[in-house]
Formats: sequence, structure tokens, C-alpha cells
Amino acid sequence: MSINSAEIICVGTELLMGHTLNTNSAFLARELVSLGISSYRQIVVGDNHERLAEQIKESASRADLVILTGGLGPTTDDITMGVAASVAGKELVFDEESFQNMSEYFRRLCRNMPKSNRKQAMLPEGATILKNNNGTAPGAIFEYACPSDQDPDRVVHFVLLPGPPSEMKLMFTEQARPVLEKMSDSKFVTKFVHLFGIGESDAAERISDLIDAQTNPTIAPYAAEGECMFRVTQRIGKDEEEKDLITPIIDVMKERFGQCIYEIGTRPLKQVAYDLLLEKNKTVSFAESCTAGMVSSEFVDIPGASQVFMGSVVSYGNKVKSNLLGVSDDVLDNLGAVSRECAQEMAEGARKLLGTDIAVSITGIAGPTGESAVKPVGLVYLALADEKGTEVKEVHLSGNRSRVRHVAVLHAFNMIRMRLLHE
Amino acid sequence: MSINSAEIICVGTELLMGHTLNTNSAFLARELVSLGISSYRQIVVGDNHERLAEQIKESASRADLVILTGGLGPTTDDITMGVAASVAGKELVFDEESFQNMSEYFRRLCRNMPKSNRKQAMLPEGATILKNNNGTAPGAIFEYACPSDQDPDRVVHFVLLPGPPSEMKLMFTEQARPVLEKMSDSKFVTKFVHLFGIGESDAAERISDLIDAQTNPTIAPYAAEGECMFRVTQRIGKDEEEKDLITPIIDVMKERFGQCIYEIGTRPLKQVAYDLLLEKNKTVSFAESCTAGMVSSEFVDIPGASQVFMGSVVSYGNKVKSNLLGVSDDVLDNLGAVSRECAQEMAEGARKLLGTDIAVSITGIAGPTGESAVKPVGLVYLALADEKGTEVKEVHLSGNRSRVRHVAVLHAFNMIRMRLLHE
Repeated sequence: MSINSAEIICVGTELLMGHTLNTNSAFLARELVSLGISSYRQIVVGDNHERLAEQIKESASRADLVILTGGLGPTTDDITMGVAASVAGKELVFDEESFQNMSEYFRRLCRNMPKSNRKQAMLPEGATILKNNNGTAPGAIFEYACPSDQDPDRVVHFVLLPGPPSEMKLMFTEQARPVLEKMSDSKFVTKFVHLFGIGESDAAERISDLIDAQTNPTIAPYAAEGECMFRVTQRIGKDEEEKDLITPIIDVMKERFGQCIYEIGTRPLKQVAYDLLLEKNKTVSFAESCTAGMVSSEFVDIPGASQVFMGSVVSYGNKVKSNLLGVSDDVLDNLGAVSRECAQEMAEGARKLLGTDIAVSITGIAGPTGESAVKPVGLVYLALADEKGTEVKEVHLSGNRSRVRHVAVLHAFNMIRMRLLHE
Repeated sequence: MSINSAEIICVGTELLMGHTLNTNSAFLARELVSLGISSYRQIVVGDNHERLAEQIKESASRADLVILTGGLGPTTDDITMGVAASVAGKELVFDEESFQNMSEYFRRLCRNMPKSNRKQAMLPEGATILKNNNGTAPGAIFEYACPSDQDPDRVVHFVLLPGPPSEMKLMFTEQARPVLEKMSDSKFVTKFVHLFGIGESDAAERISDLIDAQTNPTIAPYAAEGECMFRVTQRIGKDEEEKDLITPIIDVMKERFGQCIYEIGTRPLKQVAYDLLLEKNKTVSFAESCTAGMVSSEFVDIPGASQVFMGSVVSYGNKVKSNLLGVSDDVLDNLGAVSRECAQEMAEGARKLLGTDIAVSITGIAGPTGESAVKPVGLVYLALADEKGTEVKEVHLSGNRSRVRHVAVLHAFNMIRMRLLHE
């Protein structure tokens, strides 16, 4: 049995009223693309029994696969499991294992499980249960016999996932996706080429000949804040030979982009920096002003960060810059906290104070206030100090406060990467 | 003629493939709520003639108002205007004024207008044209005679808006909204009650009598990571008196939830903490271990943070804890970095080192590694030190590394709030 088409239904009044941005649809849509399943519609409906049932039937009449997210919670508002099961003609039955998992979840939190949570263990008979490793509501995969004129044996698959993105993504990736992979018709091989230090339109222009000529593999550019990425995807039919068409494309990209390419794969920039630190056996610390802990915090997202990362000083006020990091009053008074010299002294001070091989500092004007005629919003200085000396970089970043800070963080990681590449 | 119900259709393959996050639906949904128009469905479809026409007809059969965004561009992919017009049985006619506006737009950019843009001036006969002040594609409002069994004179309104959010939002706000306001029947008043320190199901259970009895206002619970929220919405008909039905509900919630309620309004927890610090004229610093700068970085998201925030120490390695913050070797060796005592010494050390009125420390096990039999993943100690002494809090958080760290950050802000509330 193969799945060719899908519809995604997100259930929730909070989505319908616009209080919550729907990020689940986009995530699932990308996953479906990578599975070679075409998705033709995404729908948001509220927690209304009649409309939800109608929508599920409608989607099931058109698509082989209907993915539903949301409405699996413990309250009376949460009706998705019940409605989908009733459309499919299945009873809800008590699932002891799911109930035990929930009890365990509450025990870990040292909290009593409210009675209402028992409802979440009522699941469709015969369903494949998807365990929730990030919350209480289990998900489910089950079939709906939905005959059509062409196919009296037609079966539609329902996949029910919880609404909170952190629960939904983990459950989909770990448990639902493997089931869907087995049902897919053709397969896709995808490589991601990640670049830093070049804009999306510039990058696309540099390989416009490849993009214009694409058939298989396809090449699609994506812009993310401060960086850009190309997805190169080759489609392989079920009975086709697996010839690698991707490597030749990537070789041309390497030639054109050089060291702007920081990764062919899925590692984010910080992971590339981390892996280089680990490989070269170096420790690192940060001195952060405008980013105020964001570099350190993002770096520590990497499990095992403690192997190379010792700590940081968030020197937001000037007193912290001088007292802790030893930035001289002369620099602060005459050149200011956002200056080449301040960045240098911050990095050198942090390296000494925290006793690491490398220290990176960031000081800049994130906006919306604080700018002057000579120091506009977006001006950021970064410095990297190590045993060989200190290198300072001046960058001009566009966008609002949050973007300036975010892109400054990427520059800090990229400085580590560039320094260690040349070791 | 009054409009009671709406559906929102967003057109675009980039949405369907998950390359672009759909922010238009959420924006329009909120606008509809504020206009007293119920929206029952949001749909995403691709640039496919047949499926789009089918979707428009389907939505028009159910709703008085169908808002479409996207697919108004100059390329052959952009089919929304033509398809919607053909569903409504209207010809596209050349609109001289729109054409002039587009020419003007290109002149301002010092660029020649491509021939293909002429297509964007082809608009449904008799439509109200919506000028695009942020791009080239004009929008349109027009009627579709769509008789039903109950109402042979039934008319559905189509509103067509461009896809790029900056163009769509401006056009909706300046031009489409005033038209809809005139047609709307009732309006809604909404208040948000934010809670910290209680789970969604617990919270819902505590006011289940209110939730069960709701008619007007309606009460809906929402869960966010580590916190929860209730939306209380009152509907006021056009000719009804504006009697406040929300305050009595909120008074009951205040009674039941007490200090778990941190905000009635829209301020996030960190803003509440910041406002209290500012009001009490206190400065703050942080000593962060497992959160590694996340508390500081999130706090600095608040513009004006520098008025109360001086800086922080990210003490990830034990050496930084002892050397900078003065955590004793005795504590680190015998009780460990994740202990009540370590949290206390971190906070006291940071307060002294950074010279602030208040210092908050966080140390815990974010996972996935680092746990032991007595110290499970999710165990976090926080301490708050001020002139009156030091208070330590032990919490057990569930979820993955990212969730544990995120919720620990909220606890840090909440500790500041609770301390200053009792000043």
C-alpha cells in the first residue's frame, strides 16, 4: 500500500483565532516533501465536533493520508481523538501502557495526575500508539476504510499528533515518520548546503545556471536569518537505479562558494565550531555585551558543550566590562563600549579571567536606541583572542534588535570556525 | 447585509511545501475576531487551478466571507485573481488606475516595469480595487451570488490580498478592514489571564465550573511551555449595551489562582519582573549554569533592560563557579554543582561580584546526559540573593534539554516577581 497524497489538519481555536502561529503545518509539510508525499491542502479548524468531523471526512475523500495535530489534551475541548476515531468507525479503548507512561510523567514532576488526564489514555482500538516523550498526550496511527468509486478497498491512514510543537515534532520524527517511510512510493535523497557570509539573492545568482537547468536533482534556495542554504534533492523511483546525481552539483557549488560553505549536511554553524574545538582540543569562553548571554546559551544547546565551553561574562554595564574584564577606562571614556578596542580588551580579559584557549567577545548596537551619527544600529565588533593574538572584526547588520543580536551570534561562531580551519 | 462567518484561504506552493511559515492566516484571524466575525476554517492550497476553484466554491458554500491571500503576482503561476473571478462569474477587465499605480511604483524604484506586470492590472469587473502601497499587486473585494436553499439571494464576499505579509497587512488594515467594519454585526472584547506555577489541566480543573457554564463570555485555556493562559472573550452584539461581563469572571479566577496569576494582559513574565525591578529601583544580575546565558539574553530582549540589568556570569565549568563566584570546593566536591548549597553560593557570589541589589542563580541537569540516581534530568535549583538573605528553590522539570532550560528561565523571572511582590 503506497501513500501519494496527504492533507494536514491542525485543530485548535487558538489557531483559528490567530493567537498561536501555526508552525506545525510547515514542519509537517516539509517532512512530507522529504518522504515524496504530495500535500495538497493544509486546514485549520476549531474544537467543534461537527466541523471537525466534516473536515476529516472531506480530507479523507481526497487524500491517502490525513495528519491531524492538536486537540489531544485532557480537557473537554480536546476532541480530536474521539472525532477521528468515530469517523473511522473505531471505539476508544483504555490503553494501560499509555496510562502508565502518563503516571510516570507526573511522578517525575513530583505532581499528582489530575483525573482528567485519564481521558488521554482512551485510544482507538487497533491503533498504533505513538508515545509522547515530551508531554502527556499519546498520538495514534490508524486506518479508515473509505471506499471510492474507483477503489472499493480504499484505505486512508490517519496520523494523530499533539498540538504543542515540541511534542509534535519529536513524536513525528521518532515514531510516525518511520511508519510512513515504509509506505512511501519513491524515495528522495536530499543534501543541504549551508552558507554563511553571503546573501540569498547573491548566492542564487552565483549558481543561476544550475538552478535554471535543474530537473533532477532539484535545487532550492532558502534564506534563514543571517545565513542561507540550498536543498539539493534527487528523486529515485522505486525501481530506478540509485545513481548519485547530487555530488556533481555540490562540487560545482564548492568551487563557486569556497569557505562560505560551512556545512554539507545538517550541522548548524555552532556545531561546526564545536566540532572543530573538540578536534583541535581547545577550550572557549565568551564576553558578551549586546548579545547578553545568547552566544553562550545557544552554544550550550549542543549536548556535550561542557567539554570545550568553560563559561562567560555577560558584561552589559560598563562597570562589568572594566571591573571583571579589565577594559580600560580610557577605551570606555574615549572610544566607547562599542569600539574595536573595547572588543579586543573584552576578549583578552575574558580569556585571562576564564582561563580558556580562545575567547570571543561581542559588543554592538542592537537598537532600537543607542545609536549615534558615527555608530548606527547594527554596528557590531567581535574579537577573537588566542595564544597567537587577537583578531577584531567589524560588521554592519541590518534588521531589528532581535535580528541584529541573532546574526551577531552567528558571526561569533563563524569566527571560531574560520580561525580553527586555518590552524 | 451582515457578515457572520469567514474562511481564510492562503494560496501558494511555498506554503504547501512548508518553505514559508504562514503568518497571514494568524494575522487575518485576529483581525476577524476583532471585527466580530467568526472564522471557522483556514486553508492552504497550492497554485493549482482546479483545486483552488474547488476550494473557493467549498468555502463560499459555508461562509459569508472568503479572504484569499497570495497568487496575485505577475507570473503564470499566479492564478488567484482569475480563478476567484471565474468562480464568481466575473470577467477580468483592464484597470487603468491600477496600471498607473504600478508604473509609478517602478518609477520610484528607478526600474523598468516588466511586461508581465500588466497582468496584475486585470481585475474583476465591478470590484472594489485595493491599492497596494507596499508592492505592485492590487487587491480586490467583490461579490459572488451564491444562492442556498434557505436564501436564494445569498451573497458571499471575496477579499483578495497579496501574499507577502508586508503588502497584505498594510492593504488589509488601510483598505479592506474599513469595508468589513461597515458590514460587521457584533464585536468582541478579550482579556488574557496568564499563570505560572500550575499546569494546564490542573488550572482548567480548578475553574471547570466556569468553563462548563460558559456561554458569554467564553473561557478557553491555552498551554505554553511551562506556563498556561486563559482567554476570556465577551461578544457584544451591534445594538447591545456594553456591559462588562469579563471582570466578574476574572475576579473568580483571581480568587482561585492567587499569585499564580502573573498578568492580566499581554506582558510576558520577564516584562512583569522587569517592571517590578524598575518600580522598586533595584538592579539585578544572574549566575547561570545549565541555562548558560539564556536568562540574561531573554531579559535583554526587553528594550531598556540596561536600566536594571548589569551583567551575569555564565559559570558552566566548576572552575568558573569557584574562581569567579567563590563557590567553595567543599560544596562542589561533596554536594556537587547541582545542589541547594551551590545555587546559594552562586547567587551570593554573583551579587557581590557584579554589585547588584538582587542576584539570581540557576544550576541544574538539563539532560540528556549528566543525571544520577539522586539527581534526575530536570532537577534544577534556583537561588535569589538580596540584602535580606538568600532563598533557594528546588524544581523538577519535565521534557527535553531545551524545555528544561526554557522553563528554568521562567522560574528565574518568577522568583524575582515573587520576591518583589512581597517587598
